[in-house]
Amino acid sequence: MLNPIYIVGFVDGEGCFCVAVNKHGKNRLEVRLIFEIELREDDIEILQKIKKVFNCGKIYRLDYKRYQKWRPHVKYKVSNFLDISTKIIPFFKKHPLQAKKKLQFRKFCLVAEIMQTKQHLSIGGIERIKKIIHKDSLDALDAHVQWGAIETN
Amino acid sequence: MLNPIYIVGFVDGEGCFCVAVNKHGKNRLEVRLIFEIELREDDIEILQKIKKVFNCGKIYRLDYKRYQKWRPHVKYKVSNFLDISTKIIPFFKKHPLQAKKKLQFRKFCLVAEIMQTKQHLSIGGIERIKKIIHKDSLDALDAHVQWGAIETN
Repeated sequence: MLNPIYIVGFVDGEGCFCVAVNKHGKNRLEVRLIFEIELREDDIEILQKIKKVFNCGKIYRLDYKRYQKWRPHVKYKVSNFLDISTKIIPFFKKHPLQAKKKLQFRKFCLVAEIMQTKQHLSIGGIERIKKIIHKDSLDALDAHVQWGAIETN
Repeated sequence: MLNPIYIVGFVDGEGCFCVAVNKHGKNRLEVRLIFEIELREDDIEILQKIKKVFNCGKIYRLDYKRYQKWRPHVKYKVSNFLDISTKIIPFFKKHPLQAKKKLQFRKFCLVAEIMQTKQHLSIGGIERIKKIIHKDSLDALDAHVQWGAIETN
């Protein structure tokens, strides 16, 4: 089993704590938290080992056009809110991130708290989430926001 | 001070063990080993912490044209052979890499052994290095070879 501190180092480099805001129906916005790590397909073994430690999420093979020129990629993804709030967040609270990604994680946790109390289902809650995302950011990249499920970096 | 196991995780994701083969003069090929980590400039603090642990190398600000559209990047780089052979290699032998990068590191160590005995100064030595680099590789990417100091990925 991988050492948790190794995982923290790996995630500080390659992981992503995303806040995805998608249009759902005509007017409603849907907020989702996604923890993911994307690598070249020939590095899938380390994703399988990481998945084993978190005991949740799935590994996907990516078939994006942009990768045709290069090698295929794989993504480890956790998007189930229960897994995020009971496994992913507690793990990184116990084993803190050391690089800039800790700011991204802090925002991710604040959004999770709002979602825990279902406030993200109201317009006011969505506005609060937007403020959290853009606070201290020079642009949307810091919070790794996905608007309409389009990645921003 | 950063935990060595954290550094292993970070390097497995973001680090690079490069073998640079440059033309030196008219006919001579020069081999250099380079350990490096490249990040966005706003993540420079973690590079400074990593540099402190290895106690060698330098951090450079990159001014590549390709980054003008994005944020500036910084690179932590160790290219002094004595530092590579007495600090970098022993560190990763003591704290083994866990992902695909361990294959890159293995080749890096084999080239270091050749350089230790000065064999890289002969044509035969250069040929041996080429064989090491391309062994088990589908292409040059696995060994992260730099031909003429142009990065291959």
